[in-house]
Amino acid sequence: PVTVMNMMFPLQMGTGTGQKAYLRPETAQSPYVNFKLQYELQRKKLPLGLALIGRAYRNEISPRNLTLRLRELTQAELQIFFNPNTVNHHPQFESVKEYKLRTLLVEDRKHNTPMERTAQELVTYGLPQFYVFHLVKIQQFYVDVLKIPLAKFRLYQLDDKEKAFYNKYHFDFEVELNEHGFTEMGGLHYRTDHDLKGHQTVSKQSMEVIDEEKGQRFIPHVLEISFGVDRNVYLLLDLGYENNAERGNVVLHLPEVVTPFTYAVFPLVKNKDELVAVAKEVYQELKKNNSVYYDEVASIGRRYARADEIGVRYCITVDFDSLQDKAVTVRDRETMKQERVKIKDLVGFGKR
Amino acid sequence: PVTVMNMMFPLQMGTGTGQKAYLRPETAQSPYVNFKLQYELQRKKLPLGLALIGRAYRNEISPRNLTLRLRELTQAELQIFFNPNTVNHHPQFESVKEYKLRTLLVEDRKHNTPMERTAQELVTYGLPQFYVFHLVKIQQFYVDVLKIPLAKFRLYQLDDKEKAFYNKYHFDFEVELNEHGFTEMGGLHYRTDHDLKGHQTVSKQSMEVIDEEKGQRFIPHVLEISFGVDRNVYLLLDLGYENNAERGNVVLHLPEVVTPFTYAVFPLVKNKDELVAVAKEVYQELKKNNSVYYDEVASIGRRYARADEIGVRYCITVDFDSLQDKAVTVRDRETMKQERVKIKDLVGFGKR
Repeated sequence: PVTVMNMMFPLQMGTGTGQKAYLRPETAQSPYVNFKLQYELQRKKLPLGLALIGRAYRNEISPRNLTLRLRELTQAELQIFFNPNTVNHHPQFESVKEYKLRTLLVEDRKHNTPMERTAQELVTYGLPQFYVFHLVKIQQFYVDVLKIPLAKFRLYQLDDKEKAFYNKYHFDFEVELNEHGFTEMGGLHYRTDHDLKGHQTVSKQSMEVIDEEKGQRFIPHVLEISFGVDRNVYLLLDLGYENNAERGNVVLHLPEVVTPFTYAVFPLVKNKDELVAVAKEVYQELKKNNSVYYDEVASIGRRYARADEIGVRYCITVDFDSLQDKAVTVRDRETMKQERVKIKDLVGFGKR
Repeated sequence: PVTVMNMMFPLQMGTGTGQKAYLRPETAQSPYVNFKLQYELQRKKLPLGLALIGRAYRNEISPRNLTLRLRELTQAELQIFFNPNTVNHHPQFESVKEYKLRTLLVEDRKHNTPMERTAQELVTYGLPQFYVFHLVKIQQFYVDVLKIPLAKFRLYQLDDKEKAFYNKYHFDFEVELNEHGFTEMGGLHYRTDHDLKGHQTVSKQSMEVIDEEKGQRFIPHVLEISFGVDRNVYLLLDLGYENNAERGNVVLHLPEVVTPFTYAVFPLVKNKDELVAVAKEVYQELKKNNSVYYDEVASIGRRYARADEIGVRYCITVDFDSLQDKAVTVRDRETMKQERVKIKDLVGFGKR
């Protein structure tokens, strides 16, 4: 039997009032509703980006695959409002035009292999500069910040049947997970003036702005970057988790920006007051500007293993030589290399 | 007519499955459900604090007073699990025993005036050290960190009829708002083993832990600190907002920890390249370790006013003298005093 189902969760508010509400299925609404106010507050300049992170709810029939498909999810969204007359121009486009994007265009589906295309090539292909510039920023985020291997990343173009009717252009950004293959992490949507125009119609409030220099009056267009936060967290665990047989422990290869601790500080043994004192000094000093923890319990090997397991990048050990040479051993999670570093040079170490 | 009403919001999940769920009315559940796992991960040491911030939902019949009573609210909760045999002792109690707490005990209600009592006096009165220690930390947070005048703060003891049956002790922390009088911002609840014991009964999983040193086996007790985040934000606006007639603009008196910007940097005028260059240098330097913004638009008075309105603490102006004396004018939001400071001494300024 066919059943009609609302993907939104309905709520009954109060009691006996019959007042209905729905849990929001995405977070984008409030930047649209508040656009005009924010525009005035931000001194009436475009482009204007309004970012929001929050919960959204989908009444999924079959939530599955751990945190990849949830009924309650966290979205991070950025709505960039801009003058549609400038869509074919981005002031910084020159700086990215040779950047190579790993794209799977609709035409690539026959061979199902992403192709590397420069930003300029995508513009020639027909995409606006303003859109392509943000594709570049997204790929840079995954490859340079989250350190996803390029081969596991692709920008997937949706065709006319796949994309929502209000999107003029839509690329998903996908990462190849060990367990689930290429998986959507978010999308870049060129929504034109669909939302502001709809809001204007219903509210009967003008959503037009005026470019006083050029005397233009227009409803801004919107570029929406939408991230599934839970999926991106899952991605870091899926790709970062390694059961390292050689070391005999798990190693979590987390990028710098999300490691819980950049440094761990250990005295070689805990029953030598001089070592403990120096180790605690090093800890206090690093703590001022870094995420760092101190650990003196169990063998040094066990402490390295614990640090590996939660993705600590550098382990710093204070040993008996430290008392003489004012230096410590720094061990890198990724390379396992141990390096002798002067205590006074520790601040800033690892930020090279 | 009398209507039975559930304060929780019911949801129907999926379709046709009849699977019911409720939006959570508080965030405390998951620390309880996960206690045993967290205890093992944290090396089986007590006290163990599990903090959580998140959304909670109450099907209020009459939400009102702006963000003071919401159907969707943000809670920050800290559950501290500890050995009940040690409740009358806190290892750091000595350091706070002379600290004066502004309390309104049940017995003070006749005269309705809070009394200042030392931590030691409250212990003598019958409250456990472990509980009183946390009352001190809470008052310090409001008075020292959020800078609430002591006269506007009180610890309000709930009597047996007012507190939930599972709370052995319950004080609310209240702040006197301009618009609403003394208002609950959160509470300190001594929940004993109510939650873990309930969880043990239903799940048939032991919630007992073992103190190996003493050979004791017990279900931990819980001290819960619960904050209404929206209310605390409202409090900062209610007490911090001042329509300052003398200055002719709004001044937002925000404490350092929540000011959006500690510094604003202005060149005196924007059409002198040398001033702009120095101002931008100062901005870049401060930006490394501070929240700071740069503004060159409109008169210097208008820029001071804008900074006041969003609660910026220090405005830094680069003027023509700066080019000679390598110093700038620093203006304090609170005192309006202007001070000449060498550019090289700016880093760290305001952190005295």
